[in-house]
Amino acid sequence: MKVYTKAILPIGFKANGLACGIKKSGKLDLALFDTRLPAKAACLFTTNKIQAAPIQLNKKHLKGDRQYHSIIVNSGNANCFTGEKGLRDAEESVKALAHTLGAKKESILVASTGIIGRRLPLLKIKRAIPELVKGLSRAGIDKAKKAIITTDTFTKEVTVKFNIGKRMVTICGVAKGAGMIAPHMATMLSFILTDAQISVGALKKALKAAVDQTFNCITVDGCMSTNDAVMVLANNAAGNPLIDINKNFVLFVQALKIVCLRLAKLIVLDAEGASKFIQIKVSRAKSFAEARQVALSIANSNLFKTAMYGENPNFGRIASAVGASGIEIKEKGLKVKVSPLNKKYIDVNVSINQGRASATVYTSDLTCEYIKINAEYN
Amino acid sequence: MKVYTKAILPIGFKANGLACGIKKSGKLDLALFDTRLPAKAACLFTTNKIQAAPIQLNKKHLKGDRQYHSIIVNSGNANCFTGEKGLRDAEESVKALAHTLGAKKESILVASTGIIGRRLPLLKIKRAIPELVKGLSRAGIDKAKKAIITTDTFTKEVTVKFNIGKRMVTICGVAKGAGMIAPHMATMLSFILTDAQISVGALKKALKAAVDQTFNCITVDGCMSTNDAVMVLANNAAGNPLIDINKNFVLFVQALKIVCLRLAKLIVLDAEGASKFIQIKVSRAKSFAEARQVALSIANSNLFKTAMYGENPNFGRIASAVGASGIEIKEKGLKVKVSPLNKKYIDVNVSINQGRASATVYTSDLTCEYIKINAEYN
Repeated sequence: MKVYTKAILPIGFKANGLACGIKKSGKLDLALFDTRLPAKAACLFTTNKIQAAPIQLNKKHLKGDRQYHSIIVNSGNANCFTGEKGLRDAEESVKALAHTLGAKKESILVASTGIIGRRLPLLKIKRAIPELVKGLSRAGIDKAKKAIITTDTFTKEVTVKFNIGKRMVTICGVAKGAGMIAPHMATMLSFILTDAQISVGALKKALKAAVDQTFNCITVDGCMSTNDAVMVLANNAAGNPLIDINKNFVLFVQALKIVCLRLAKLIVLDAEGASKFIQIKVSRAKSFAEARQVALSIANSNLFKTAMYGENPNFGRIASAVGASGIEIKEKGLKVKVSPLNKKYIDVNVSINQGRASATVYTSDLTCEYIKINAEYN
Repeated sequence: MKVYTKAILPIGFKANGLACGIKKSGKLDLALFDTRLPAKAACLFTTNKIQAAPIQLNKKHLKGDRQYHSIIVNSGNANCFTGEKGLRDAEESVKALAHTLGAKKESILVASTGIIGRRLPLLKIKRAIPELVKGLSRAGIDKAKKAIITTDTFTKEVTVKFNIGKRMVTICGVAKGAGMIAPHMATMLSFILTDAQISVGALKKALKAAVDQTFNCITVDGCMSTNDAVMVLANNAAGNPLIDINKNFVLFVQALKIVCLRLAKLIVLDAEGASKFIQIKVSRAKSFAEARQVALSIANSNLFKTAMYGENPNFGRIASAVGASGIEIKEKGLKVKVSPLNKKYIDVNVSINQGRASATVYTSDLTCEYIKINAEYN
């Protein structure tokens, strides 16, 4: 299994990105991922009860396991809390793209990220679509990965290549952070493209398994977004022996996890205003779910996060967050170890003496810079 | 019903406070509240699974509805996460006080607040106890209320006087904040003294009712402490007609709520590093519990709190926090109103179109000052 720190498109995929004028800064803000081969799709969305228009539209398009070709993404505007008008805006932009591509609108998925509560500048998007489609290329991934980001300070990308039988399969992922990150598909977008030949059932199950231990194990500020999504398109172009629930599945999940874990870690590494990357491992729990719950309780504690920022060895705050997690825990048998605090990478190890399961969660510290970014961001 | 913004001890109570050397600053750090009359007690403690030694000891002393005389409180050291030695330290300090007072040790309740994970300086406390007891007086409440605080910038105190029959009843409360404040008895200490003649059943029920809508409706940073407690002593000295569940109960709860609400609001007003006092009312919910859950989801959102700090009218963050609360909510029918943001006092009104219940929660903004205080606090 080979891991590349760059996005390299799998066979049969193209992409593009451009600036259509949503961002006042003039930065890239519209991206397209496309395959002309009929691809299978698996998606996981935010569990926030308020869901942005693009999420609502995707849920319609994903009914019935159709074939998919494209994902269109805009940054700078989340098209959320915009009511029925917002849903119509999302539909209109997809319709325009379908027309230009000569494709069915149901074959297109859509994502938006940025400010909540403002109407999408639909006209700007519609005007840019012909150029967006015309410019689709394999190298276009380098523009697309930039066009999906907002306050991110770097692009998030990874590619894994591995063999199934004699055929090489590629999984390429790009993502955006960087604030409002909490588990359960909260506040990030991630697009994963693969040429693997895989059944739709296996693709969905693999995504769930990979996300559970990667994107659902990161938190920046405990805030769950209304827009976030991880989407996979698999276009079968690699011609590998079929991956199904019982065939080559473990290998595929392993590769997909590598992709998701790297993207998840990059999101935390680029967390708004963060000065530390903190790995919290909770071991000797009754189950993975309980271990993760304890780890997230620590990771989301503002007092813990500020202590890390201050390089302040106040481990009582860790014990207190463990106790507040809701899991039955006894003080006796609770062990806390923390690596030296004067480094950028901090390891927190907590053993709770309850069982044999463990979970690892990734988070950042809470800094004045975070406050400044989010006090001003509009 | 008369409300005084100062602590005025009810009939039969004395108090004192002094500096025994726990705080390096030399500030007051040991307090005693005392009545020589046999008093009934009602207490509510943190729901954190890791509970400090004083909480554990109180739970022992509260078994069997005995008579109580005193509450001893130290600030500067939480005596938490200190294991069996910590529990023995708490027992030893209570034993020393019982000896000096000539009282049973089970008649004494105890509270600690400050840094977690360090042994209590028992010798300093034991040495100070004779002076602490000797100095008990009615005016001593002014020292006691100072000796219970940590990072608080002002004392929190209130007194309510009202008649039951022809007798005047007094309820006096003092409290400490100021960080690590979250619902469910999280991170604050509050001591309430009353001369009311009241059955122990009514006292407990009244406290629960009052706390549910006051102390359990405030949050500063969502962090639940290991030490926090609200304790009431009622010494019957007012000679009023008995308050029982069915007699004069509503009036007593009303007075107790005034005391608790003022103390709760003062804690939020003095929240670490806060620049705003924010009242969040959620209305048209199915129940009080659901309304409070939604309000707390907003109040605990770092993105909401930083938006308030930045006077940034990013109401999408409110909608997003409503959706993340776990309550079933539809975007349609969700209404958000926020008072002008350039003031110190902010009103947030959210209507969720689900039913007829409402709840009000009090919180503060999240500022660089909070980060600084908690990055450095040891």
